Amino acid sequence: MTYCLAIKVDSGIVFASDSRTNAGVDHVDAYSKMHSFTVPGERAFVLLSAGNLATTQAVLNILRRDFDDRHSIRSLSTVDYVFDAAQYVGEVSCNVQTRHCESTRKSSVNLGASFILGGQIAGKPHDIFLIYPEGNYISPSPSNPYLQIGETKYGKPILDRIITHGTTLEVAGRCALVSLDSTMRSNVSVGPPIELALYRKDGLDIERHVTLDADSEYSLALREAWSDGLNRVFEGLPRFDWE
Amino acid sequence: MTYCLAIKVDSGIVFASDSRTNAGVDHVDAYSKMHSFTVPGERAFVLLSAGNLATTQAVLNILRRDFDDRHSIRSLSTVDYVFDAAQYVGEVSCNVQTRHCESTRKSSVNLGASFILGGQIAGKPHDIFLIYPEGNYISPSPSNPYLQIGETKYGKPILDRIITHGTTLEVAGRCALVSLDSTMRSNVSVGPPIELALYRKDGLDIERHVTLDADSEYSLALREAWSDGLNRVFEGLPRFDWE
Repeated sequence: MTYCLAIKVDSGIVFASDSRTNAGVDHVDAYSKMHSFTVPGERAFVLLSAGNLATTQAVLNILRRDFDDRHSIRSLSTVDYVFDAAQYVGEVSCNVQTRHCESTRKSSVNLGASFILGGQIAGKPHDIFLIYPEGNYISPSPSNPYLQIGETKYGKPILDRIITHGTTLEVAGRCALVSLDSTMRSNVSVGPPIELALYRKDGLDIERHVTLDADSEYSLALREAWSDGLNRVFEGLPRFDWE
Repeated sequence: MTYCLAIKVDSGIVFASDSRTNAGVDHVDAYSKMHSFTVPGERAFVLLSAGNLATTQAVLNILRRDFDDRHSIRSLSTVDYVFDAAQYVGEVSCNVQTRHCESTRKSSVNLGASFILGGQIAGKPHDIFLIYPEGNYISPSPSNPYLQIGETKYGKPILDRIITHGTTLEVAGRCALVSLDSTMRSNVSVGPPIELALYRKDGLDIERHVTLDADSEYSLALREAWSDGLNRVFEGLPRFDWE
């Protein structure tokens, strides 16, 4: 399993992802699920991936090849809108899945992969999209300006309670880390290291990209402060009328 | 869908349940999913139900009939241990499902139902069990002394962060309400009113049973205090080193 999310606030976009991959309990490993494609000053994209590892790796290889090839007609370096980029990633993903479809039809292997793509192209607004295994895509709702892929439920309540359009990029970043921490506590198929990237609106480059191990100083401090804070809030909740 | 949970702490048991039932978006209604069977001073049980409504209603009817019939050989009023009670409920559930199995085999109807049974019999320890649709059952793990049925994921992180064996009954009760509130915010198939029951160890009767509408005074106060508290905790979390 996997847990990745992107939060779109007025001041930019937060991206966060875990790193655990597993194909059964005997094949547990760590791969980055966060990939950036930037032409500083012109465009910046971050892609988060979940699902079949062979599919996501093949998609990433093709996206990178096309991006780096200045003769390619269509790539993340040529598209004119973020939704165009989402459409392109969806098509590449479908093509990769179709290529291996025949040989996996008789097995129970699921080739599906989901992606979150976010970023900005100069002169256009910043945006995020969730790309389904079928290649189609959605943007977040106005009331819940975030998108999740993978093991999404454990980490959703804290997003619903904290995130608004006006949340600062740093608070949204901490909220993403707490959302991931909640998920890791509840599901062993989601695991460290955690990657966090902050994109500031009109920055046209990734402003911050940090990788946090489970026992990194900041992870430990955040987890302790969060746990202590929650317990304090619980102590202060209104008593039942019989207490 | 449904969300019910029971928390077993040293001082007793907390039970909580939502009330929403749905068979498609055209058939949304509210039924109690919390049922108590008590012989004050001798034994007290609470049963929480999730799954096919016809199955849970039939099971409840049989349990109540057997409980009220002082000649019945086996019932919640005759069993000697809480695990015996769980075994009995599982058998009744399986019998009910088998009865309608033939006629539903060709349809896609799922007759399955899950239950949480908790309580105490005089002279024995208090305990809780989760009873699967197959009739078998488990008790909670020592490290996570709670059980959930239905839509369990959204409300799990807060339980993992707050609940220990030493948590007081009232704090566990508030934690159950927050867990339910988080679930209701994230999933429309879980809805009010919320029922909360508190069983105090060796009390051999249900100490408190409250039903809370979404806009009841206590629900509103709890939700506001929780939301304000969370936002305060977020404001106080350790800053990133570049802030």
